[in-house]
Amino acid sequence: KKRILVTGGAGFIGSHLVDRLMDEGHMVIVVDSLFTGKKSNLERHYNSPRFEFIRHDVIDPISLEVDQIYHLACPASPIHYKYNPIHTLKTSFLGTYNMLGLAKRTHARFLITSTSEVYGDPLVHPQHEEYWGNVNPIGERSCYDEGKRVAETLCYDFKRQNGVDIRIARIFNTYGPRMALNDGRVVSNFVGQALRGEQLTVQGSGNQTRSFCYVSDQVDGLIKLMNTEDVDGPVNIGNPHEFTIRELADVVKKAVDPNVEITYTPLTPDDPKQRKPDITKAKDVLGWEPGVELMDGLKLMTVDFKERIRNGD
Amino acid sequence: KKRILVTGGAGFIGSHLVDRLMDEGHMVIVVDSLFTGKKSNLERHYNSPRFEFIRHDVIDPISLEVDQIYHLACPASPIHYKYNPIHTLKTSFLGTYNMLGLAKRTHARFLITSTSEVYGDPLVHPQHEEYWGNVNPIGERSCYDEGKRVAETLCYDFKRQNGVDIRIARIFNTYGPRMALNDGRVVSNFVGQALRGEQLTVQGSGNQTRSFCYVSDQVDGLIKLMNTEDVDGPVNIGNPHEFTIRELADVVKKAVDPNVEITYTPLTPDDPKQRKPDITKAKDVLGWEPGVELMDGLKLMTVDFKERIRNGD
Ligand SMILES: NC(=O)c1ccc[n+]([C@@H]2O[C@H](COP(=O)([O-])OP(=O)(O)OC[C@H]3O[C@@H](n4cnc5c(N)ncnc54)[C@H](O)[C@@H]3O)[C@@H](O)[C@H]2O)c1
Ligand SMILES: NC(=O)c1ccc[n+]([C@@H]2O[C@H](COP(=O)([O-])OP(=O)(O)OC[C@H]3O[C@@H](n4cnc5c(N)ncnc54)[C@H](O)[C@@H]3O)[C@@H](O)[C@H]2O)c1
Ligand SMILES: O=c1ccn([C@@H]2O[C@H](COP(=O)(O)OP(=O)(O)O)[C@@H](O)[C@H]2O)c(=O)[nH]1
Ligand SMILES: O=c1ccn([C@@H]2O[C@H](COP(=O)(O)OP(=O)(O)O)[C@@H](O)[C@H]2O)c(=O)[nH]1
Ligand SMILES: O=c1ccn([C@@H]2O[C@H](COP(=O)(O)OP(=O)(O)O)[C@@H](O)[C@H]2O)c(=O)[nH]1
Ligand SMILES: O=c1ccn([C@@H]2O[C@H](COP(=O)(O)OP(=O)(O)O)[C@@H](O)[C@H]2O)c(=O)[nH]1
Repeated sequence: KKRILVTGGAGFIGSHLVDRLMDEGHMVIVVDSLFTGKKSNLERHYNSPRFEFIRHDVIDPISLEVDQIYHLACPASPIHYKYNPIHTLKTSFLGTYNMLGLAKRTHARFLITSTSEVYGDPLVHPQHEEYWGNVNPIGERSCYDEGKRVAETLCYDFKRQNGVDIRIARIFNTYGPRMALNDGRVVSNFVGQALRGEQLTVQGSGNQTRSFCYVSDQVDGLIKLMNTEDVDGPVNIGNPHEFTIRELADVVKKAVDPNVEITYTPLTPDDPKQRKPDITKAKDVLGWEPGVELMDGLKLMTVDFKERIRNGD
Repeated sequence: KKRILVTGGAGFIGSHLVDRLMDEGHMVIVVDSLFTGKKSNLERHYNSPRFEFIRHDVIDPISLEVDQIYHLACPASPIHYKYNPIHTLKTSFLGTYNMLGLAKRTHARFLITSTSEVYGDPLVHPQHEEYWGNVNPIGERSCYDEGKRVAETLCYDFKRQNGVDIRIARIFNTYGPRMALNDGRVVSNFVGQALRGEQLTVQGSGNQTRSFCYVSDQVDGLIKLMNTEDVDGPVNIGNPHEFTIRELADVVKKAVDPNVEITYTPLTPDDPKQRKPDITKAKDVLGWEPGVELMDGLKLMTVDFKERIRNGD
């Protein structure tokens, strides 16, 4: 059994990861500023002696004794990361720097959740890990995209310069229970809208594509990546099944409410036109691939969203 | 007359910039850690009451009262920026963050010397400012390239979030007197080698291209960029005359010593294959273009190098 730090553990993906690590019997420490996360996502663990929550912003140093670090702390949805772009950049740079410093001192293995956004608006399709990306350095999304790119650089330089054992997961769009209802992301928006009987807001033409990974598959991939020896280089973790946003709207209608309507709203700047992970490396190196179909995942998510909307979340 | 801060002012480009600003009658403060710079580059100014030198690393905050900030502090040549990649990243991120904080507090106009390396190994030729680049986020050059990209992001976010008046110069390869003799860059290597009667070390095939800007032209461009109102977006400052490295070797031979020989050595990783600035924007917006031909610039540089080599620099 290990002592495991999960930064951002009160958030969407982080809390599911914590559930799994607790189920496996580990000691888990969550460090989270609660900028977007919620203590309620972790409520089942507060009375466990193997669990601890620390309210802390990773832009400041912190001293802990651990064996593994899952570094997730970072706002993930456009409305949250654009809320205070300078703080987003500091979170990516200083947060990663501090957690790498901690990993260096404790000799802990370090995993960061990077993102498909490092590929930007990709000119290569599907995206494999060797692709260097097409990212606007000075746009409104740059605080997130460039922040994650330089966080990856830091990881590699801590590996090369200090021998820190690092793992980089490049996560593609992930959905499931506990997504913030107000995070503005397409799946949470559509499911929330369908449940409230509102129109689904398709931005732009709706011909842009994304590939949606259910959160249990995602967590599975992260744990495999952490615990596989000698993984070199970043690994894409995502579902390669690609949908246009219009197709997604149709699946949400089928899964939640066939009578709901679609409305078209303006596209945000620098929105990537297509995105689909090449997961050959994850299959080969980790023996991982996702198993949950979109329709099934949406139904599981809808149960959670229905209850939270009813409770006024 | 203005109070002007020049970070990195003891370096190659910085010291030429300081000469110009002092000639124009301004008060000049240089902040420099002397990592690669030298006090001797500034010796003619030490007895002026309008001049001050502060030994300080920009990764730490500093409080000064100024009207303009030229932020150059950053190692610029591959051997220097690879010497301590983590410190290079901190210089780009924290150094720029601190200087932007200073600009915000003092309402100073802020200019950063970014680089053609933000275009990486470019797939668009020549490189114009709208091109998003082709940069490896996790390679050996990434501490510099990604560091500068995220520094640009910071500038834009300080502009959008705090109204800081920013200027971004994307500098292309610049050469001239006071280049460090040991910085490993192609022009300083070739001129030094030719003067010592050593073979010119052409890396790889020598078919890769660069475009070389003489330092007085460069400084001219930076000062114009700082003092032109309402410049939006980054501006390339460089010489569009493109040479292969083999052609450069031939010009150096002609300028310094026709009898010197060429030898071929291995290429370093991720070396960009071609580079040439599109300077349409600098011409249109600043009314700037370079005037010094390579042969003439090399001769001026050779006078300086000859004397420094003789003095055992
Ligand atoms: N959800 C996705 O589709 C997706 C896609 C790509 C990458 N990711 C990455 O996965 C990670 C988790 O994303 P998520 O979807 O669970 O988002 P989330 O917003 O639900 O979780 C992020 C957590 O980090 C915390 N946090 C943010 N800034 C912090 C700081 N400075 N200090 C301490 N805690 C801080 C938040 O409070 C929150 O609990 C992020 O790193 C994100 O970039 C997610
Ligand atoms: N020379 C070129 O061809 C070229 C090309 C593109 C961009 N640039 C940029 O122009 C600027 C100046 O480059 P240069 O060629 O004069 O290099 P240089 O190495 O001669 O000058 C850099 C100066 O910054 C100082 N410095 C470095 N790190 C510092 C830190 N953390 N705190 C304080 N001072 C620090 C050094 O001591 C040095 O005096 C750099 O920002 C560089 O990235 C130069
Ligand atoms: O247990 C630790 C060890 C380090 N750090 C921080 O991690 C960063 C990098 O640490 P490192 O020791 O590599 O850097 P240094 O202090 O040598 O620059 C610094 O901000 C440290 O304060 C931390 O937060 N917890
Ligand atoms: O209500 C919404 C929210 C998002 N989108 C689109 O869905 C895609 C995914 O957006 P999201 O913010 O979920 O994630 P990201 O762009 O970060 O992949 C983008 O093309 C958005 O324009 C949409 O059509 N309607
Ligand atoms: O005169 C100044 C003003 C600010 N800063 C530094 O610039 C950074 C950003 O300053 P800002 O006020 O924007 O940031 P905040 O302190 O509000 O996070 C901080 O590290 C400050 O210490 C500085 O070095 N000199
Ligand atoms: O002694 C040298 C030093 C550099 N180069 C080549 O010259 C080009 C410019 O290298 P430099 O380090 O001057 O600048 P940068 O690569 O940053 O443009 C690169 O293709 C190098 O491979 C070379 O052929 N011989």
